[in-house]
Amino acid sequence: MSAAKIRYAMVGGGRGAFIGAVHRIAARMDDRFELVAGALSSNPDNARASAADLHIAPERAYTSYDDMLRAEKARADGIQAVVIVTPNHMHFPVAKACLEAGVAVICDKPVTRTLEEALALAQIVNDTGGFFALTHNYSAYPLVRYARELVAAGKLGKLRVVQVEYPQEWLTEAAAADNKQAAWRTDPARSGAAGCLGDIGTHAFQLAQFIAQQNVSAVSADLASFVEGRAVDDNVHALLRFDGGAKGMLWSSQVAPGCENGLRIRLFGDKAGLEWAQESPNELWFGELNKPRQRITRRGDLGSDMVARGMRVPGGHPEGYLEGFANLYKDIADILLARQQGERHFLQDWVPDITTGVEGMRFIQAVLDSSKQDGVWTTL
Amino acid sequence: MSAAKIRYAMVGGGRGAFIGAVHRIAARMDDRFELVAGALSSNPDNARASAADLHIAPERAYTSYDDMLRAEKARADGIQAVVIVTPNHMHFPVAKACLEAGVAVICDKPVTRTLEEALALAQIVNDTGGFFALTHNYSAYPLVRYARELVAAGKLGKLRVVQVEYPQEWLTEAAAADNKQAAWRTDPARSGAAGCLGDIGTHAFQLAQFIAQQNVSAVSADLASFVEGRAVDDNVHALLRFDGGAKGMLWSSQVAPGCENGLRIRLFGDKAGLEWAQESPNELWFGELNKPRQRITRRGDLGSDMVARGMRVPGGHPEGYLEGFANLYKDIADILLARQQGERHFLQDWVPDITTGVEGMRFIQAVLDSSKQDGVWTTL
Amino acid sequence: MSAAKIRYAMVGGGRGAFIGAVHRIAARMDDRFELVAGALSSNPDNARASAADLHIAPERAYTSYDDMLRAEKARADGIQAVVIVTPNHMHFPVAKACLEAGVAVICDKPVTRTLEEALALAQIVNDTGGFFALTHNYSAYPLVRYARELVAAGKLGKLRVVQVEYPQEWLTEAAAADNKQAAWRTDPARSGAAGCLGDIGTHAFQLAQFIAQQNVSAVSADLASFVEGRAVDDNVHALLRFDGGAKGMLWSSQVAPGCENGLRIRLFGDKAGLEWAQESPNELWFGELNKPRQRITRRGDLGSDMVARGMRVPGGHPEGYLEGFANLYKDIADILLARQQGERHFLQDWVPDITTGVEGMRFIQAVLDSSKQDGVWTTL
Amino acid sequence: MSAAKIRYAMVGGGRGAFIGAVHRIAARMDDRFELVAGALSSNPDNARASAADLHIAPERAYTSYDDMLRAEKARADGIQAVVIVTPNHMHFPVAKACLEAGVAVICDKPVTRTLEEALALAQIVNDTGGFFALTHNYSAYPLVRYARELVAAGKLGKLRVVQVEYPQEWLTEAAAADNKQAAWRTDPARSGAAGCLGDIGTHAFQLAQFIAQQNVSAVSADLASFVEGRAVDDNVHALLRFDGGAKGMLWSSQVAPGCENGLRIRLFGDKAGLEWAQESPNELWFGELNKPRQRITRRGDLGSDMVARGMRVPGGHPEGYLEGFANLYKDIADILLARQQGERHFLQDWVPDITTGVEGMRFIQAVLDSSKQDGVWTTL
Repeated sequence: MSAAKIRYAMVGGGRGAFIGAVHRIAARMDDRFELVAGALSSNPDNARASAADLHIAPERAYTSYDDMLRAEKARADGIQAVVIVTPNHMHFPVAKACLEAGVAVICDKPVTRTLEEALALAQIVNDTGGFFALTHNYSAYPLVRYARELVAAGKLGKLRVVQVEYPQEWLTEAAAADNKQAAWRTDPARSGAAGCLGDIGTHAFQLAQFIAQQNVSAVSADLASFVEGRAVDDNVHALLRFDGGAKGMLWSSQVAPGCENGLRIRLFGDKAGLEWAQESPNELWFGELNKPRQRITRRGDLGSDMVARGMRVPGGHPEGYLEGFANLYKDIADILLARQQGERHFLQDWVPDITTGVEGMRFIQAVLDSSKQDGVWTTL
Repeated sequence: MSAAKIRYAMVGGGRGAFIGAVHRIAARMDDRFELVAGALSSNPDNARASAADLHIAPERAYTSYDDMLRAEKARADGIQAVVIVTPNHMHFPVAKACLEAGVAVICDKPVTRTLEEALALAQIVNDTGGFFALTHNYSAYPLVRYARELVAAGKLGKLRVVQVEYPQEWLTEAAAADNKQAAWRTDPARSGAAGCLGDIGTHAFQLAQFIAQQNVSAVSADLASFVEGRAVDDNVHALLRFDGGAKGMLWSSQVAPGCENGLRIRLFGDKAGLEWAQESPNELWFGELNKPRQRITRRGDLGSDMVARGMRVPGGHPEGYLEGFANLYKDIADILLARQQGERHFLQDWVPDITTGVEGMRFIQAVLDSSKQDGVWTTL
Repeated sequence: MSAAKIRYAMVGGGRGAFIGAVHRIAARMDDRFELVAGALSSNPDNARASAADLHIAPERAYTSYDDMLRAEKARADGIQAVVIVTPNHMHFPVAKACLEAGVAVICDKPVTRTLEEALALAQIVNDTGGFFALTHNYSAYPLVRYARELVAAGKLGKLRVVQVEYPQEWLTEAAAADNKQAAWRTDPARSGAAGCLGDIGTHAFQLAQFIAQQNVSAVSADLASFVEGRAVDDNVHALLRFDGGAKGMLWSSQVAPGCENGLRIRLFGDKAGLEWAQESPNELWFGELNKPRQRITRRGDLGSDMVARGMRVPGGHPEGYLEGFANLYKDIADILLARQQGERHFLQDWVPDITTGVEGMRFIQAVLDSSKQDGVWTTL
Repeated sequence: MSAAKIRYAMVGGGRGAFIGAVHRIAARMDDRFELVAGALSSNPDNARASAADLHIAPERAYTSYDDMLRAEKARADGIQAVVIVTPNHMHFPVAKACLEAGVAVICDKPVTRTLEEALALAQIVNDTGGFFALTHNYSAYPLVRYARELVAAGKLGKLRVVQVEYPQEWLTEAAAADNKQAAWRTDPARSGAAGCLGDIGTHAFQLAQFIAQQNVSAVSADLASFVEGRAVDDNVHALLRFDGGAKGMLWSSQVAPGCENGLRIRLFGDKAGLEWAQESPNELWFGELNKPRQRITRRGDLGSDMVARGMRVPGGHPEGYLEGFANLYKDIADILLARQQGERHFLQDWVPDITTGVEGMRFIQAVLDSSKQDGVWTTL
């Protein structure tokens, strides 16, 4: 693949940040992107030092995204894409500015702080015709995509039950004052009204819809804030109804000792069931009624183009979180290449977009509303 | 242990039945019971032939429990206990008759067909001072009991979240006409208004309360009957609130392809979490916050008397469903022995009784009510 | 099944013993045997008290097996079978006496203390035409038998590699003086020259031959006694060559911390591989070349009569060590019944016998010889 | 980390190759290396096209490594390191030329085709004082390194038993004529006299020594070539003796259906045991005598600097084969940086070097010799 690399900038992700480094590795993995500029921090010193760390030329280390967009526009070798890895409240203004400047946007989830912002952003995407991808990375694991293909091919029969969960332990206790990651995630002003719900509940929700290929139409929820003084939820219990007739449960928690990143999904139809867990991402359990369960592994000979393109090493050599994340970037590179030639790439059906983002915010809103009204079924 | 064996009779459990044979093996395992009589079937031929299979003397093979109770009373070596393994609708009249005849009752679950019957039976137990045990066998696995001890000892800290589930696949399709087990379980007249809910949902519920040592105070439920024409539920989704402040989820299903008897429970407190699954009953996962999870196995050196008394072979040699079931019988033998001497045995705190039965029926009723009212939180 | 129960006695297995109780539960599980007599201990007090524990009539509580055989012969309701659960050195004389008295023998493994004794016993079995079963219980787990059927049916293709192991931790340190089980097992006078090799190595060996249906023709071995002062081996490393062309490895150890009863076997042919482990006995892994591995579970619908007859509860309800052991007893009951009618039952092909015993002793001898000669390949 | 990237070239690894791409991703993962030149193929068209794929300037796409070394020497921005990913027979000449040209060498395993070559190369490394790393990537998984630290810290006590294995299925059948990977690996002229032994047996061997921190002093081996017509071994059975007193077994196989890349190691001392498997690399099992086994996961809070530096995402987010491989590259970057300043970096103790390579070839030679002499114990 000798196509020119895509020149991108990052907003957020300076020293001390977490998810920025993940995006950079994911972008680098398949050598399709080149980090050439950044507004890595609102703090000028951090912005400059962080840029130096990352081999960004000093003159392209900006302290505001507005400055960056303006300056880059003037360059022949200016940025083609921006990766947004700020706290949630900054997603909207940065994405808006980028889209209006004609720059492609790759944005961490959840898409915005509120549903209103998400709807506004959807309008902007539509009006500008710009590119917007939302990095729900779990849906880019090869076997998650294969699960989706199995459902689409009818291997499960008519879908009836979807059980999805995402327990973590890391917020079991009140966070230490100096824990930056915990701090903004438990601050409604930066994170939105949802805590655990927005941080990982949306991942679980997106994964369920992505594989099931049905939309959640209504929820009945019970949120909890178990840690004293916590301003947002830290445990989400929700019943789900899907528009295709399936029913389900979603549990996400950040107060579950013994759990690291226990994202897990099970789907059952009238013919077969499926199970996948993020901590063992290279295996997918497929169980047909009254037959031995099969442990499907990530292999080139599964007969799936999506699995094959999402692999870098043979079956039995584990690929993990970063490779799944990198699959999104590889796909986005192909999509952007196609867009340059005025074409729509089929991979757009596989990469979460602004619609995914709006659905996620509708889910958050519906769960908050339902929980406030003692679990009344609330439509999305 | 040279104490005389307890002479018991069985009602139900003739040829073609399932759970009767299980009870007999469980009663026989530790050589504390002797099957001496039976009303094994309402069909005289079956009753006689079944009794002969089981080395029951012909004159003690009855065709009605009333006849049996009367006749046995007249014998010096008459029965001391009756095991009830009929379909649910017969539990109440048989138990009532036994209790009034001064015979101990060991009854399969759920306790009765309706909450009203359960309450009436509780009254009878109280009035007669008789013995009544309900065979929620899962709660007698040694590591389930150890889990209960860990919770009681505060090893989990304050309990916050309880996730319990019991998926099976066997009713994924409409049952064949000749499937006796399926037939009565999906017939409200014999099984009660609850299908999957009564058959296995109650096991999950009982297990949760047994380990958590908190009672479920309210439920919000969504029942489904996915198989066309099925008169009872085959999938149960319920949110739980416990009287000690914990929240939880209960899922039971009989339409989950790939699942055999997937009873599984997880409990999380503010210090640690626990996980146990019926299909791997000899291991219990204990995870303290930010520490490696421990795989506790069924061993004599755990420092638990309850574990030690529930073991017949050393750790690493698996014990299973029948041994768990047999633990109930062994305990009941000790309890009955103590009762003969006018004493209350501490094991009564470990063996499910009529109170457990009433709670189970309250749960069933509350779930049915909540689901009918679109999930409104319903107190038990 | 209304056939009369088989009346049996036990030699060994009094208070303080381990394996005797296991045999009694196994014999009792399916209600085909009745314990009526015993020479449970060479100590008269223990013999008497132990008999009382077991509901054996006082007059049938003997202090020597010779007395017992003589006295029982004189009774109309005398014993039909003897179960030998003494330390190894007593196996030969007791078995010899029983066979000569026309009583069926069910003997714990290894068959004798030396190869010479085993050969002599084989001669006696042959000369008397008596019945002799050796309780290699692991080979009676339903899925072990199913594995054997899969190999026989050619599902693995031509067998190439057999890997078997049995690690334990319990003798990692020098045994406490009062540990009766450890004491005789590490005393050559009672256990034979083999330690770990005889105690569990023979189980692994028998399991390998049982499933592979090839005999080990030669071994190259390296024994170790890691614990200072131990008179017998506590770790066995052996390379195997089978007479059908397969090659293999056998590891057994009693100094492997973290291992309880880790008996595990894997077989590979030119089409597929199999894996089974005693600590998860209800699953069998079957992997065809380049296909997903299947998790076969113990189910009535596998299409195997041997699996079906070895089950008491449905798939998903775990059966364990005792049920596997009980399968041997159930089979022996059927075999003895057939013998009473002068017939040979097909189950004799499934129950380890004196030939199995001799092969096991040849294996022990060959391993001891090879190890003494620094690993030279030694034929069995 | 703003240090300049290390400029490297690749020899081998053109279109159609496998391991070259793996090295490139590993080198790229942490942004410490830059691929600037290559002798990617002996075929000029392939060399040119492959270079273009990889963004290598056309003038730096060479067709011979000699030309490359000469030309690059003349450039101010010439290469600092060469990555050798050719078939085995080319390792020696390329490495020799690089070392003599003062260029650091990063070489795939096994180090050479023969022991003689390995010894000669060791001499050259010594004489030139050059840098040579051997990419035994499995030893760079964070939890493998943690296992080594646990052994070093005495957590296992005195080491007694080491069981290591590496089964694969991919050569179960004779390879198709067009399978390039299989072709050279089964051709002694390119691969050396060892087949499976050299390809993956050496990985298992290196892993065992790396964690045990004892050297294998002697082996007794039994090689097989199960596939008809195969010129090299496809199954390795070997008994091991370590110079510190431990004993072990090594099994590697490429004819094991159902196995993908089943590298697995277990070590047992007189206090505790350890288990790690490549297909689940983010967990390490630690079992102290008579205590519950612990599932240690890759986490920053384990208290190990080596684990912390080998992580890119938090525990519970799986890292895999590529990240393990990348750890070697990151370490090499640090080591090369230190060497530029005339310092020896402690990481040299963690990165396999020419000594590791020579030991691996000694192992291969000893196994071949022992097997030819019917398993006689052969010193390394």
